[in-house]
Amino acid sequence: MEVGILGSGDVGKRLAGGFATRGHEVILGTRTPGNPELAKWAAGVKGKITVGSFADAARQGQLLVLAIRGEAALAALDAAGKAHFSGKVLIDVTNPLDFSKGMPPSLFMGTNDSLAERVQHAVPSAKVVKAFNTVGNVQMVDPHVKGQGRLELMIAGNDAEAKKQVTEVAKSFGWSGTLDVGGIDAARWLEALVPLWVRLGATLKTYSHIFAVARD
Amino acid sequence: MEVGILGSGDVGKRLAGGFATRGHEVILGTRTPGNPELAKWAAGVKGKITVGSFADAARQGQLLVLAIRGEAALAALDAAGKAHFSGKVLIDVTNPLDFSKGMPPSLFMGTNDSLAERVQHAVPSAKVVKAFNTVGNVQMVDPHVKGQGRLELMIAGNDAEAKKQVTEVAKSFGWSGTLDVGGIDAARWLEALVPLWVRLGATLKTYSHIFAVARD
Repeated sequence: MEVGILGSGDVGKRLAGGFATRGHEVILGTRTPGNPELAKWAAGVKGKITVGSFADAARQGQLLVLAIRGEAALAALDAAGKAHFSGKVLIDVTNPLDFSKGMPPSLFMGTNDSLAERVQHAVPSAKVVKAFNTVGNVQMVDPHVKGQGRLELMIAGNDAEAKKQVTEVAKSFGWSGTLDVGGIDAARWLEALVPLWVRLGATLKTYSHIFAVARD
Repeated sequence: MEVGILGSGDVGKRLAGGFATRGHEVILGTRTPGNPELAKWAAGVKGKITVGSFADAARQGQLLVLAIRGEAALAALDAAGKAHFSGKVLIDVTNPLDFSKGMPPSLFMGTNDSLAERVQHAVPSAKVVKAFNTVGNVQMVDPHVKGQGRLELMIAGNDAEAKKQVTEVAKSFGWSGTLDVGGIDAARWLEALVPLWVRLGATLKTYSHIFAVARD
């Protein structure tokens, strides 16, 4: 499968590596396709990663990933060309983090909206699935916690088939499975987990912690 | 210790039972102190529980608990008499849940405010600690999940000593300990966990699930 990833920061690169090492062909879309550091990084990953523009990634990818910082997420869709998203599954990893008052962050979104819903609204014929936003990039692929058997990724989205596909991706990345919390509006609460995740990181002095849902 | 609990719903009763069975003297404050059902319930709990008004609970309690549904929380402080809260630790278990659109709930609070902060503002000389709001009432006391060794209660508040005292309460109730996520403003994110908790309950068909923070 060809996977188009928008965003070449830590999250974009981590997920690109996950897909590439699982045998998918990755087009990593970036604002700076000529960046020699990125080319060097891509050459070092096992598997096929091509660096291109946002438009290259969105056009070529059959499965798309939005891994852009919150404030820039909607502009990246414009830059990529919204028509390229039509009918495709779009994994939305963004978070509307507000660092305007420093650390720890808040959200630039209230509780009646989410960045995921704005993304879905911007590309209405895409099948947006919120996923991977509640976990640090170091744990997105091959997640591991000592003594924790079950690691589940929380996801939300309107399209059941798209959520199934994302569940398969998560499993291929080493997750036990996913926890489907509802339609794309439920992403409000997945995004609101992230300021809590950051605060817990400060308390626990780690950023490899993962939210789990304990039950019998 | 005398513990004053404001609220005689499932949460108030559960916590009252927790304190009473640990040897504390509980004054359960309610809008309806003459309710024979409540008297009958209190008589059935091992330990000492007296049913009284909100004011009785707030006046007599050395440690106070606010276990009122979100919309009524601030009015209950007024009814109890704000002077009674002065200098005392107040465990805030409330959630600003908005059921106006049915299930599952949203919050009637944005991401720049929380009910806990409003409670702290209403009784500024109380030491408010957000606690027990992220877990279902069936798991507040003697929490148990098969195969889950560590169960930690997430708390927030401005006063370190008060958080220590709430940690001791949690441990006496059977929790492994607490996870301190920050000052009272961090309660925004503990309150935002609750709509997610409800959605996960629908997915998992249980309301005894508990958020855990997995890490090495």
